[in-house]
This record gives sequence, C-alpha cells and structure tokens, in this order.
Amino acid sequence: MSLPKNVLLIICDGLGDRPCKQLGFKTPLEAAKKPNLNALAKKGACGLMYPLGPGIRAGSDTAHLNILGYNMKRYYQGRGPLEALGIKVQLKQGDVAFRANVATVDKEGIIVDRRAGRIDDASELAKALDGMEIKGVKFIVKPGTAHRLAIVMRGKGLSANISDSDPHKTGVRPLAVRALDDSKEARFSASVLNEFLKKAHSVLSAHPLNKERKKKGLPEANIVLVRGAGMFKPVQSFEERFGMKACCIAGAGLYKGIARFLGMDVLEVKGATGKANTDIKAKVNAAIKALQTYDFVFLHIKGCDIFGHDGDASGKKKFIERIDSALKPLLKLKDTLIVITADHSTPCCMKDHSGDAVPVLIAGPSVRSDSVSKFEERSCINGYYRFNSGLELMNEILNLTARAEMIGS
Amino acid sequence: MSLPKNVLLIICDGLGDRPCKQLGFKTPLEAAKKPNLNALAKKGACGLMYPLGPGIRAGSDTAHLNILGYNMKRYYQGRGPLEALGIKVQLKQGDVAFRANVATVDKEGIIVDRRAGRIDDASELAKALDGMEIKGVKFIVKPGTAHRLAIVMRGKGLSANISDSDPHKTGVRPLAVRALDDSKEARFSASVLNEFLKKAHSVLSAHPLNKERKKKGLPEANIVLVRGAGMFKPVQSFEERFGMKACCIAGAGLYKGIARFLGMDVLEVKGATGKANTDIKAKVNAAIKALQTYDFVFLHIKGCDIFGHDGDASGKKKFIERIDSALKPLLKLKDTLIVITADHSTPCCMKDHSGDAVPVLIAGPSVRSDSVSKFEERSCINGYYRFNSGLELMNEILNLTARAEMIGS
Repeated sequence: MSLPKNVLLIICDGLGDRPCKQLGFKTPLEAAKKPNLNALAKKGACGLMYPLGPGIRAGSDTAHLNILGYNMKRYYQGRGPLEALGIKVQLKQGDVAFRANVATVDKEGIIVDRRAGRIDDASELAKALDGMEIKGVKFIVKPGTAHRLAIVMRGKGLSANISDSDPHKTGVRPLAVRALDDSKEARFSASVLNEFLKKAHSVLSAHPLNKERKKKGLPEANIVLVRGAGMFKPVQSFEERFGMKACCIAGAGLYKGIARFLGMDVLEVKGATGKANTDIKAKVNAAIKALQTYDFVFLHIKGCDIFGHDGDASGKKKFIERIDSALKPLLKLKDTLIVITADHSTPCCMKDHSGDAVPVLIAGPSVRSDSVSKFEERSCINGYYRFNSGLELMNEILNLTARAEMIGS
Repeated sequence: MSLPKNVLLIICDGLGDRPCKQLGFKTPLEAAKKPNLNALAKKGACGLMYPLGPGIRAGSDTAHLNILGYNMKRYYQGRGPLEALGIKVQLKQGDVAFRANVATVDKEGIIVDRRAGRIDDASELAKALDGMEIKGVKFIVKPGTAHRLAIVMRGKGLSANISDSDPHKTGVRPLAVRALDDSKEARFSASVLNEFLKKAHSVLSAHPLNKERKKKGLPEANIVLVRGAGMFKPVQSFEERFGMKACCIAGAGLYKGIARFLGMDVLEVKGATGKANTDIKAKVNAAIKALQTYDFVFLHIKGCDIFGHDGDASGKKKFIERIDSALKPLLKLKDTLIVITADHSTPCCMKDHSGDAVPVLIAGPSVRSDSVSKFEERSCINGYYRFNSGLELMNEILNLTARAEMIGS
C-alpha cells in the first residue's frame, strides 16, 4: 500500500456539539444527513481530539496553532497579530498589533454602539488615522470588514502586556489602557496607546464621513476600541518545518492570518465569505485543485461555529448537510490523506466554545481504517484515534506521510 | 484473585504494521494465524501504545528505554554505548562510545563497500587497533558480529557531541568528524577521533588479513566508519529502581546492551541469533525457566522488524505465526503477568519505523480482562489500554504487581 501523496486538512470551525433537545438529544452532526462524511468514515479511521487538552476550552486561534503543529504555549502571541496578518498588514518583529472596532460614543463619552451601527466600510476612517506618530511610535491602521480595523504600533521599547480599551459592552466609557506588568515598556506602550486613542477620537469626530452619518441619523463612528494586543515575532514556516508546501483556503480573516503567520499561501476563492452564506462547493473545488500544486491544503469552514454561537441547532445541522454535500468530490481522491476535524466544539446550549472533544476523521492511503461508519461525536468513541492535543494530530499526519523524524535509532 | 508473582515482558520488535495490499489490506498481525496470542488476548486485556508519543517515530533504543521505565528524554545517551555494552565492553563514566563498521575504500579514498564485503570476522582487525592512545585518549576497539565493531574513547575532557565519519552511503569519502558545539571538549574529541581514524586506515591497510583478502579478490577491510557517538553514564539499576530482579533474553546486541545498561542479567540462549532464523522456541523456553529465578524476564524477538524493513509482508506474517506457535507454553503460566507488545511499528509499505501505535496485551492475575479476543492492531482499539508513552506501560506493570509507589496518602 502506497503512502499518501498530499494532505487535505479540513477544519469545520465549532463543529462539535452536545445533545440538543430540539434535535431529539442528538448533536447537530449526529442529526445531519451526511452520506459523504460517513462514506469517508467507513473508508478511514476516526476518533476524538481535544485540541488543547481534555476539557480545555480552546479559542479558534490557539486551537488552530496546535492542530497545525505549532504549540500554542510557545507560538501564540495574542489575536491581534493574526487578525492584522489576515488583512494583509505586513508585520515586523516587535510590532504590537490589536484587533479594533470603530464604535460610537455619545457626548458624555458613553459607548452606545460597539460597532457604529455595523458601518459598511471603515476604510476612509482608517486612512485618517493611519501613519499617526506619537513619541516615536508609528500607528498603522488598516480596515478589515465592516466596523473592524487592525491597529499596529511600530517602534522601540514596546510591550504587548497591556489591557484592552474595549469594555466589551455598551453603556460604559471606554477603558483606559493599563500596563499589565511593572515594566517600562508596558507603561510606555499603554501611555502612547491612550494618547493615540484620544487623538483618534478627535480625528474621527471631525471626519466628514461622520458629519454625513450624523445628517443621515446613523451612529457616528467616532471612537476606536482596541483589544487582543499581541507582539509579533516571525516563526519558522510550515514548509521549512514540515517539508510540505502549504496553502490555505478560508473566508474569515483570522484563518488567513494564521496561514500567513505560518508562511502558507492564502488562495482567494470567490464566494468564500467566512459566514453562513459561504460557497462551500467553490472552496472544496479550489482545495482539490490546489492539491495539484501543494503538498498540504488547509481548508477552513466557519459556518458551524456561527450557528453554535447563535444557539441555532437546526441551522447548524443544515449547514453540516451543506458541508457534506460539498465534500462529495473527496470520495474520488485516491492519493490524498484527507483529515476532517474541528478546532473546538461550539455547543448550541452554551452559545460559546466548550472544552468537549471534537470528532476527527483520517482517510487515505496508509490509514489503519477502523470500524467506525459514522462521522459523529459519539460514534468516534469507538475509533482508532484519541488525541489529547491538536499537536498529536500533526504528528500523525507526518507519520502517515512518512515525514516524521525518528527519535533514536 | 491473587497478585502476579513475576513478569514476562515480550517485545516483538517492529511488530505493528499498516494494512498491506498483498495481505488483502490486513496487517501481517491481522493476517497471521495466531491461536495462542488470541487465547492470551481473550484471557487478558489489550490496547494500544505509542512508545514515545502519538505519531512519534521511535528508534528501537529509545522505545525500549521508555518501555522498560527509563524516560528516554533523560536516559538516552545515543546508540554507541548501548551497542558497546551489547558486546560486553566494560564502560566507565565519561567514556564516549560509537558503533563502527570496517569498510572498504579504494585508492582514491572513496568508500566502495560500507561493510567490507560483509567480512565474517573482524576480530583480528579490532585487535590491531585496540589500545591505541592519542593525546591521552585510549581507544578500546572490540569486534561485534561480522563487519561490526564497538569503539570507545576513554580519557579526560571528552564530549559525545561530535558527528559521524560514516556517510551512510558508498561512492563518497568518509566524512571528517566535526564538533557539534563550540566546546573545547567537542573540538578535542573530534580532532583526536580524526587522528585515530587516519591511523586506523594505515594500520588496517598494512594488516596481513587484508593482504590475504586482496589476494583472494575480496574487498579489503581497510577503514573504520564510526557513528552514533554517546557518552556513557551509569544509571540506577532496574532492580534497585523497581524492586524486581531482572534478566534479558535476546539475540541482537543492542537489546543485550540495553539490558546491561539497566543492570539486568543477560542470559545466552543457543540458537538466539537476533535474525529471522532465530530459535524462538528455545528463547521462550529459556524465558519460562528464568521465571523460576527472576521477578522480571524481558524477552526480545527481532524478526518482525527485519521483515518490515525488507517490505516483506508475507514473511512478516509467517514469522508472527512462528512466534505464536512458540508462545504456546505461556498458556500454562498461572502466576505470571504476561506482557506482549512491540517497540514500534515497522510497516512493510514504509520499510522503516513509523509512529503508528503498537498493540499491547497484558494477561495474568489481577488484570481487568476486556472483550478483545484477537491480538491485532485494530482489535486492540476496543481494549482497556491506551498508553501514550511506553513509560505508562511500566507504571501499569508496577501497578498490577502491587509495586507502584503511592503519590500522596
């Protein structure tokens, strides 16, 4: 039996779930019709995985790092740099990056809308702030989708160990950014950032776009809220590390950012939105095509997580059925190691990530196919695999493709 | 039910495999007729084990250390010392030991045969080199089987952090040994070893045995190639550590070396060759006899690994059937904890070690026997055990024999 020629890793974000009352105490994955996933399960080996460890609640960012073989304890630098990379900001070592929103405060400075009425496009506002310099620190401000921005502080003597200005709720003032340790760098960074946020408020309040919005009765995007500070440090690329030329197909920025962080090519696919309306078939087809030129294709599908956060079990089930239908062409792949899993569970009853195990499926040449015939959380209990960390999954991928280094002789 | 009186650990080297096309996509173990192994599986509890961790490719040396309860991260010193101990070289703390071959270079110094035509006996050549002293470093040179030697550097200020002279291929010159760090010790050791290798070339070229070989048209054994440097440091013996008087029955030198490293007695058994032609019945009978005087008998059977490296699935299956047949007397053991496993998988499709899980079987008094009735990679999925490290297996042996220390109170 030959070895796999390449690898297709599909991460269905937030796929795992708990028994849902509205689905007769099945999980959305158990309730879904999924002939193709089940056919792959029959063909391959299944099991369970705890991306960060048994019972540990994983973020999407940390879980992806582990699953892609980068120990999050060592490589996770906060969400900010990954989001910035997701919208193609070129980061340099030592940059401190944040996720940010444009938001609305009233005359008393109280936040009345954390997303400035989900403003369509904050590009003009970003441009007005981009390039500002304070005490030798340059602020790079780039627009993401809708109300989202990436903000990067570039300069000497910075620290990312500072708090958010975003209070994550309305009806209160933005928080003053604080140093989270006693270092000179953290105190300096907090003070410079506070000054930037004050100036940004002035600039945005006076911006023509906001005057227009006011006229139209729309919430002004008159303040910036920052969160998720992280200091960027480049890492050894996925290709250098694992010997596989790799690409990523994803809709949402974070996953593109993670891919860029690891030096993967990011392939843009029309209709890939990172939302429930995404064109899954287009993404799967692009992934299959990419297998002709890449050793490792990472395909990210966000939808399940969104339905989980909304507590919509039936919507999650239907989205899984859409995924299943889009995966049909995978049944024809002969030489590819197909790996399907999730970064974490997002149970509808929690409306948030949980630390529950996620199902994992590996099919293709070299696999010790097992008796599991359904790709479901509870069928996978009887499968071959039990990964207590996402890192173990990458070890197994390297093992099955004969790329693992031997320890000893 | 009483506690086991003693332990028989059988390691079938390289036993695990992947589905093999030529066996109808069964593994050799699955395809083999093995009534005795299956009877033991029925009687006991089965499971899977990753000797060094999920997906991690293990060497035989590192895997054995973990399985025998010595964390390889702490105790592995390289293969050299273990091979030297395997041929009864008496090592002292600080010795740097190597595996070595006598080999053939042509007039231009190009390696034309890494094993000097698999010369029968290199004893005379070893004797000619043994005892050489360079800059206060004494070289101990002892013959192994055929073209193999053990070479030990004994002296002050040595380091094992030096490279191999063996390029592991023909058609090139031997490599100059290099220091792998900037220490004085590594540089000194590399330089002394290079001088020894040069002198060894002169001595061997002029040796009467080689003149004879030349006359007969045989490749001259005119050079020494070294690899696997390791510095010897004695460790606490198996008996002191685990309270069990232990012995080893093995054909191949490495396993005897590992046993001696851990202070076990090595019992020599006639017909134990460490090859496919070994007398498995004689080894099993010797092991059963040894249980009368030892608390822990470690029986090593090499053959499966050899067939795996050769990619010979059918040969591997037949060798497993020979093992099974030799194990019949085990069914009569009443008071012994029987542990059967492998140090790693050597899938025929890879012709090398893989990071796949190995099956494990534990039978005897005290065992929570499970429903697994076949000792096979995939039947073991449903077994009681899942060891993510060989170290966990020894913990379980200590547990079942009521020898484990309590943590806390």
